[in-house]
Amino acid sequence: MYTEIKGGITAPKGFKAAGVQAGIKKSGKHDVAVIYSTVPASVAGVFTKNTMAAAPVAVSRLALESGVASAIVVNSGCANACTGEQGMQDAMAMTKMTAELLSIPKEDVLVASTGIIGVTLPMEKVAAGIKAAVAELGQDEQEKSMLAIMTTDTFPKSCVYEFELGGVPVRIAGIAKGSGMIHPNMATMLAFITTDAAIAPAMLKQALTDAVNVSFNMISVDGDTSTNDMASVLANGLAGNKKIENMNEDYAAFTKVLTDVCIYLAKQIVVDGEGATKFLEIKVRGAVSFDDAKKAAMAISKSPLVKTAFFGQDANWGRILCAVGYSEAAADPTKVSLSIGDMTIVKKGMGIALDEQALKKIMAEEEIKVVVDLGLGQEEATMWTCDFSYEYVKINGEYHT
Amino acid sequence: MYTEIKGGITAPKGFKAAGVQAGIKKSGKHDVAVIYSTVPASVAGVFTKNTMAAAPVAVSRLALESGVASAIVVNSGCANACTGEQGMQDAMAMTKMTAELLSIPKEDVLVASTGIIGVTLPMEKVAAGIKAAVAELGQDEQEKSMLAIMTTDTFPKSCVYEFELGGVPVRIAGIAKGSGMIHPNMATMLAFITTDAAIAPAMLKQALTDAVNVSFNMISVDGDTSTNDMASVLANGLAGNKKIENMNEDYAAFTKVLTDVCIYLAKQIVVDGEGATKFLEIKVRGAVSFDDAKKAAMAISKSPLVKTAFFGQDANWGRILCAVGYSEAAADPTKVSLSIGDMTIVKKGMGIALDEQALKKIMAEEEIKVVVDLGLGQEEATMWTCDFSYEYVKINGEYHT
Repeated sequence: MYTEIKGGITAPKGFKAAGVQAGIKKSGKHDVAVIYSTVPASVAGVFTKNTMAAAPVAVSRLALESGVASAIVVNSGCANACTGEQGMQDAMAMTKMTAELLSIPKEDVLVASTGIIGVTLPMEKVAAGIKAAVAELGQDEQEKSMLAIMTTDTFPKSCVYEFELGGVPVRIAGIAKGSGMIHPNMATMLAFITTDAAIAPAMLKQALTDAVNVSFNMISVDGDTSTNDMASVLANGLAGNKKIENMNEDYAAFTKVLTDVCIYLAKQIVVDGEGATKFLEIKVRGAVSFDDAKKAAMAISKSPLVKTAFFGQDANWGRILCAVGYSEAAADPTKVSLSIGDMTIVKKGMGIALDEQALKKIMAEEEIKVVVDLGLGQEEATMWTCDFSYEYVKINGEYHT
Repeated sequence: MYTEIKGGITAPKGFKAAGVQAGIKKSGKHDVAVIYSTVPASVAGVFTKNTMAAAPVAVSRLALESGVASAIVVNSGCANACTGEQGMQDAMAMTKMTAELLSIPKEDVLVASTGIIGVTLPMEKVAAGIKAAVAELGQDEQEKSMLAIMTTDTFPKSCVYEFELGGVPVRIAGIAKGSGMIHPNMATMLAFITTDAAIAPAMLKQALTDAVNVSFNMISVDGDTSTNDMASVLANGLAGNKKIENMNEDYAAFTKVLTDVCIYLAKQIVVDGEGATKFLEIKVRGAVSFDDAKKAAMAISKSPLVKTAFFGQDANWGRILCAVGYSEAAADPTKVSLSIGDMTIVKKGMGIALDEQALKKIMAEEEIKVVVDLGLGQEEATMWTCDFSYEYVKINGEYHT
């Protein structure tokens, strides 16, 4: 289907990026990034559903309306959320500065922020940062752009996939950040995707929506969703493929790879979940509907009792079934089955005799797969989550405003 | 309105209780309790909505149908949940044994279990325990009955309130357990209430439902709801008040005190929340509807990020507003205000200049009141929750099946 290749968001043709240390983060680490397409690109974005959505979310939503954009300006260290009228002015100023420096319309610039909520941006530092980032834009600077979007992340997350559309090589690349406040519906995470595919804005929007529904909306770290989440994709057409204008074969191929990019990045976010020691794949099948399967998978993925049990390497399956029970998914205690790793633990609601030693070995692994079969229908859903550790409490109890 | 008096569930006339060590708990602590009314009593109960509801829940639901009961048999150490047909037989056997020993119909006995899920009851031990408990039934044995319903609780929870109905003194008493898996809709908790008031079953049912909605359904420890939750009330009429047959003044007075008993017990459960170092009261007002107020209060109460912030004594109000934002309650970022303790932190969506020292003092207290004013309407809701500590992870990560 596709080949994984080296590089980052500048791997598709016509993209440049940069990241600089503007002094917004107290740590002095990279905190302003600019991503730029040298030609106007089709653009699509998906945003948080939080009613307290931050100013940059409101500004970027507007920028999407034309379906065309060329640049994204991002800062970390300050979310510019709950900052009122001042916040809106600051977010708009960021797009304006970037646009002027790049000589493009300000409506073609998206803006994203991540960090502490309730504090206004230090605009002098931000302005200097944007100026420096634009000056440094290049193909080899993309690693710094990844660093500049991070907050509590412990490693940068990116991938580049190459595939063909009508015999023409096309690339899709993505970077993402986010490790706390991660939960379905665009939890505190930012994802920026670039591609040189030629695709109409309406098709790009549909492809992104479908990709996000089975990737970023299927991960959970702590059940909180943030004010600033955003996933966007810029498609500049420089690969030279026949432009995708409708839901043809090329559209399907493009969407498949875009989905895989999003799933890869989503899983990386969970692997980097705050304090996570285990990566858990929760699959619920045999459901009456996809909604039910997702509800049950989400209840399991969010349950602090399930997550602490995995941290403690204890196969406390009662907590898993209990979560299914309160998920509001249709379920019957006499029909539900459960396996952990490849071992069947529960058959039709009853715990079965186990090889305790083998189970202990499964629970000690870093990646564990949980499959719940509701035994009622044919639908299924897969979510990814992590365990809940002392370290999670430490990171979030000691992160001071 | 009422006087708080000493004693426990045997303080109302005609009630006896006992608790014994039957060997179900590995620790050897008390694990079987019987509560008994010497005359048939009106009965009402509210149960978990979990689809994986345990066998004792199913059996007790049936026992409630006649509106009359005389006894409750309870065990801790084993939840008798996810135990299939065997579990149903065991739960029924518990009511039958208790009924025979007390010479009452088995339909007049409720049964409750709490503890590990997925393991069948050691029925020989249970049978011996019931026999011993019935033999020890008395007015002075009620403290042991409190111990026998505990699991990870660190202290027993009870209260007795006395008031008058038409000049006649009436008492309502209650005991409760539950410290993990606590969340609205009857989270892993058991509450047993006794009263010598004379009240018809239908009125008792309504009173209990109303009381539970603003008490046990408004607490959250970790957001999980269990398979075994149950709150029940036995009203034996021995106080001699004019029987409450409709929603008159006496009904209102009775319901008010019953509600206060439930709120007291609910708050005690939160105080004893697993690993809790702080007791938090979350009030959301200015909402368009009670449902909205409750949704917002619940989102705040459940948020691991909010709970770890309080553990860290950090007034991270962005996390609180963020939770309001994803709660699905109608909210407007330009109208929401927030206070912690008595200090206003956010006014119409904007953080305001603070006395940092005074705020630090508030955050160091053991009981903290958070008030969110949505600024949209007149409705409000109050929930009680606790913080999220290392100890929570320890208790639940190291609790092995």
